[in-house]
Amino acid sequence: MAEHRQVKMDAKALSAFMREVFQQVADDFAIDHVAPDEITMRLLVGDRHLRPGGTISGPSMFALADVAAYLATLAMIGPQALAVTTNCSIDFMRKPAAGVDLIAKARLLKLGRQLSVTDVMLYSEGMEVPVARATLTYAIPPVKG
Amino acid sequence: MAEHRQVKMDAKALSAFMREVFQQVADDFAIDHVAPDEITMRLLVGDRHLRPGGTISGPSMFALADVAAYLATLAMIGPQALAVTTNCSIDFMRKPAAGVDLIAKARLLKLGRQLSVTDVMLYSEGMEVPVARATLTYAIPPVKG
Amino acid sequence: MAEHRQVKMDAKALSAFMREVFQQVADDFAIDHVAPDEITMRLLVGDRHLRPGGTISGPSMFALADVAAYLATLAMIGPQALAVTTNCSIDFMRKPAAGVDLIAKARLLKLGRQLSVTDVMLYSEGMEVPVARATLTYAIPPVKG
Amino acid sequence: MAEHRQVKMDAKALSAFMREVFQQVADDFAIDHVAPDEITMRLLVGDRHLRPGGTISGPSMFALADVAAYLATLAMIGPQALAVTTNCSIDFMRKPAAGVDLIAKARLLKLGRQLSVTDVMLYSEGMEVPVARATLTYAIPPVKG
Repeated sequence: MAEHRQVKMDAKALSAFMREVFQQVADDFAIDHVAPDEITMRLLVGDRHLRPGGTISGPSMFALADVAAYLATLAMIGPQALAVTTNCSIDFMRKPAAGVDLIAKARLLKLGRQLSVTDVMLYSEGMEVPVARATLTYAIPPVKG
Repeated sequence: MAEHRQVKMDAKALSAFMREVFQQVADDFAIDHVAPDEITMRLLVGDRHLRPGGTISGPSMFALADVAAYLATLAMIGPQALAVTTNCSIDFMRKPAAGVDLIAKARLLKLGRQLSVTDVMLYSEGMEVPVARATLTYAIPPVKG
Repeated sequence: MAEHRQVKMDAKALSAFMREVFQQVADDFAIDHVAPDEITMRLLVGDRHLRPGGTISGPSMFALADVAAYLATLAMIGPQALAVTTNCSIDFMRKPAAGVDLIAKARLLKLGRQLSVTDVMLYSEGMEVPVARATLTYAIPPVKG
Repeated sequence: MAEHRQVKMDAKALSAFMREVFQQVADDFAIDHVAPDEITMRLLVGDRHLRPGGTISGPSMFALADVAAYLATLAMIGPQALAVTTNCSIDFMRKPAAGVDLIAKARLLKLGRQLSVTDVMLYSEGMEVPVARATLTYAIPPVKG
């Protein structure tokens, strides 16, 4: 989005933050790569994310898209535990492959003072076509003077 | 939607079906009421659904909306394990109250041969204003001749 | 939403405002009814809204949903030309009937300081089942001190 | 999506088809480029697309996204006047620039037998950051045997 912008939190800082605020689910996720306006993450798929037949549950896919959009936003603005999702639209397009992680490639499309908008594509690791896509809006709490 | 239509599965049949196909999460949900084109369900909120501060996680809210739309559809068409969510848009509007269940009131807006569309309002039990709303589309597998 | 709240603009004030800020399209719309958190409007369907076969175009349906959500919001907060749509999800469910107006029933689900969220159902006049549904988010410009 | 797939309709064939089925609005749009799973189109911005202040109206942006998704689908499946939009989610992120065309870059994410899913980014010509993004689902009528 803006070439010269830099991240305020790198993968290590984001992982530590995630572990602090989402302790219950932090073990589910890993951060592969962080760059300005971009993050790549993965869902470390375990039995608790599966539906009969070995497919990944919808809520697990939603959870990955949601955390990726959140961390893509925080990478640029710094730690803000109070940013909240206000809207998500998600399209489930293909059945995820069994036995591999789910990868999220998130791209920040807008970072305003009040709102961020992030596009997320979800892939079964090693597949070229996406299994799902999502767009998420986060409300950023106003800075106190 | 259609006054004369009747449910093909009642609360008991839907509960049994949910237990069979979603065994890992069936204990999270209960069905309060089923009527033609309508279902009321609840998320039996436990620690695993919470975020720090006692609020219910986004994926847990998504999960409740998703299962309510699924069962609202199945109530009318009968057991179809293969119906899949193709799209969800969800608006998170208020922080859920701590210590109470989350209630979903789902209403089937369209039941076509290929797609169903369901509106879901989520409430913290005992509150008048919704905490979230969602619309979900389910693709219904073609009947084999 | 809030029983005691009152409208700041009634149908007459909203019509005058719409005519002022949307002069190019104000003749397309009429306001049937305004109440706290609710508005009923109609698209006065003309040839320019139609597709071959007599069906109403998607952009015309979107336009009606959008103006209904906008006016439902303004009815409660007063004239704010600068409120802007930030998000819309819309489901097209049935073909509108030919030769009748399109009716929007809009309901404000949330009115915060920064955002409003409005649900809109669209009906062909005289039909019981909706042709489309939409949810729209409006960003409300901050009040200057 | 699929490298080896070829378009069934090129820009010329799509333009002729658009002129035939959307005669009332075909002059609003032009096709810049067609490739497998991709199309670039523009809204030839005129006074009828503007709001006071010179900004492009929401319904005009929706219309461009909708036609781009439709033609991206038809390019791959051939002329199917009966394909209909079933769902659209759209995020309006920035005010379009005055006095320039609006460009849509559409990418087909899924082309199934019953549904297509297309991502569309909207740009003011000459700007690097998008003004809006949309995802649209089209229902493809079943082939008659």
